[in-house]
Amino acid sequence: MSLIDFSEITAALQRIQPYASQTPIFQSRMLNTWLGHEVYFKAECLQRCGAFKFRGAVNTLAWLQQQGQLPRKVVANSSGNHAQAVALAANLFGIEAQIFTAKNVSAVKAAATEFYGAELTLCDTRVQADQQVKQASEQDGVYWIPPFDHPQVIAGQGTVAFEALQQVEGINGIFAPCGGGGLLSGTLIAARELAPQAEVIGVEPLAANDAMRSLQSGEVFRFEQSPKTLADGAATLSISDLTFEHLQHLDDFYTVEEPQIAYWTQWLQHLLKLHVEPTSAMCMAAVVAWLQQQSSPQKVMVILSGGNIDREKMQLLWQQDYLQQIPVLIE
Amino acid sequence: MSLIDFSEITAALQRIQPYASQTPIFQSRMLNTWLGHEVYFKAECLQRCGAFKFRGAVNTLAWLQQQGQLPRKVVANSSGNHAQAVALAANLFGIEAQIFTAKNVSAVKAAATEFYGAELTLCDTRVQADQQVKQASEQDGVYWIPPFDHPQVIAGQGTVAFEALQQVEGINGIFAPCGGGGLLSGTLIAARELAPQAEVIGVEPLAANDAMRSLQSGEVFRFEQSPKTLADGAATLSISDLTFEHLQHLDDFYTVEEPQIAYWTQWLQHLLKLHVEPTSAMCMAAVVAWLQQQSSPQKVMVILSGGNIDREKMQLLWQQDYLQQIPVLIE
Repeated sequence: MSLIDFSEITAALQRIQPYASQTPIFQSRMLNTWLGHEVYFKAECLQRCGAFKFRGAVNTLAWLQQQGQLPRKVVANSSGNHAQAVALAANLFGIEAQIFTAKNVSAVKAAATEFYGAELTLCDTRVQADQQVKQASEQDGVYWIPPFDHPQVIAGQGTVAFEALQQVEGINGIFAPCGGGGLLSGTLIAARELAPQAEVIGVEPLAANDAMRSLQSGEVFRFEQSPKTLADGAATLSISDLTFEHLQHLDDFYTVEEPQIAYWTQWLQHLLKLHVEPTSAMCMAAVVAWLQQQSSPQKVMVILSGGNIDREKMQLLWQQDYLQQIPVLIE
Repeated sequence: MSLIDFSEITAALQRIQPYASQTPIFQSRMLNTWLGHEVYFKAECLQRCGAFKFRGAVNTLAWLQQQGQLPRKVVANSSGNHAQAVALAANLFGIEAQIFTAKNVSAVKAAATEFYGAELTLCDTRVQADQQVKQASEQDGVYWIPPFDHPQVIAGQGTVAFEALQQVEGINGIFAPCGGGGLLSGTLIAARELAPQAEVIGVEPLAANDAMRSLQSGEVFRFEQSPKTLADGAATLSISDLTFEHLQHLDDFYTVEEPQIAYWTQWLQHLLKLHVEPTSAMCMAAVVAWLQQQSSPQKVMVILSGGNIDREKMQLLWQQDYLQQIPVLIE
């Protein structure tokens, strides 16, 4: 299996430009002073649908259209950001979308998916949703857009880092969260070309450390059931063979404990005034650990993957007062 | 007492431009579709110090400098956004700042005030802080910047609406929260000149309805002690004679109950992906009430005053799940 070529990301960026937003870069003067380094945040929470996922979904449809293979209908199985991204992308291309999800999906997510015009099929369990999407995708004219295991999805997600590295020059380290590894793989490809001096670093929750285990053992590790973590965007069962191929080229990989995830979610929401997902904020724990090893001031890019958080998670995230402890680098 | 002239706001905007950010306008396609109107949000939570307060503070110092009367030192009594705004403004003008606050100030607010280089004096009670700031201001070369009862503070706050009404044309209604009335007075002056067709509407918590009582009775009403509300930015004891003079020219005024404040904070954080204060989000309850009286699609501007929220308030705001109930206009 070979790595996806950088030219695929360049092509993806051109394809998605009519549909996706170029998201802005944020900084916190206070955080930079406290840390003694420059940290730039790519605010993908301000992307359409509130997450980077829209890039991969819309790139896949635009690519299919270029090949003259735009399907009659797309299907996806997801309860989260990917479902909404596929629903909106299909809407923009004027084709049908059907999303299969477990029936315990939250009202706000269901409403958003239906808002974009998708048909929402509630299944008893996630496993049933997975089976039904597979059956549906075997019908004529139906295309299944997976959340990460697809070259055009990865190329689309790579446009986040492509944009970010053109918005800020001289980055020494670029950090992205790892769920299925699509965003992180795309980040790696973009960074190797646009900022070859930069280290590319992946981050996942310790409680959902399938990628770390895969990298350590040399083969893809798969959880039996969904791991529980505040960083729900990174709670995938496993990465794929395709993303694993990419992740093996990372410069470093960190896992983060739950209290640190809550700590950084509070602080980034407070400092940046952005409604940042724990999956995104988690990266800051890795940034701090990485910065402690550096001997000179660094310029770091953090990809804030999204901003979709349900009520229950917000309540958990703000249970303790982490704003009492100012972030500092312990030297 | 006469109204502050629009030319003061024009002058303020020129003065503050080297220091303050021009904050962006946000929209939610989903919210607009649900409501059937266009709602624009002026994201003053992305202002320096995280609130509009910086504009008034920095304008006052720039104005003093223009008069050749830049003081040696400024003082203020506040535990919130105004303290940080005065601290940063003084820092930028290279003068001393001393902030008097009650000793129960939160660690994060204290840290921010000191980050900007101000001396923080902790007093036993808020009343003592008020006395001490008065004493300090009687010293030679010391200037007291009040949070709202000052023409140059009001002129500075008026630059928010000035910018917003130049960023979006054809606004029919402009909504701002009312604490001491500085932001709302400035909004009124700017809107009457730049969008004379627009209604200007004030909003405060029902639990802190001193302005509403003042408007109804025709004289300034004053609470004995600080009212308790989620919208802490609007929990002032009273408006001032100067702001009252302005507020009497408003087109309408709404009060909002606590559950509605939490409802709209959750929804705006979710839809806009901004860490919006309850004092700002509260305005949406008034927007919906106002829109229900309109017979054609409207263009509304909401001034999101700030984004500084402590942990305890976040916990309270996210206790119930308001995201289950999609916002709609009940016709």
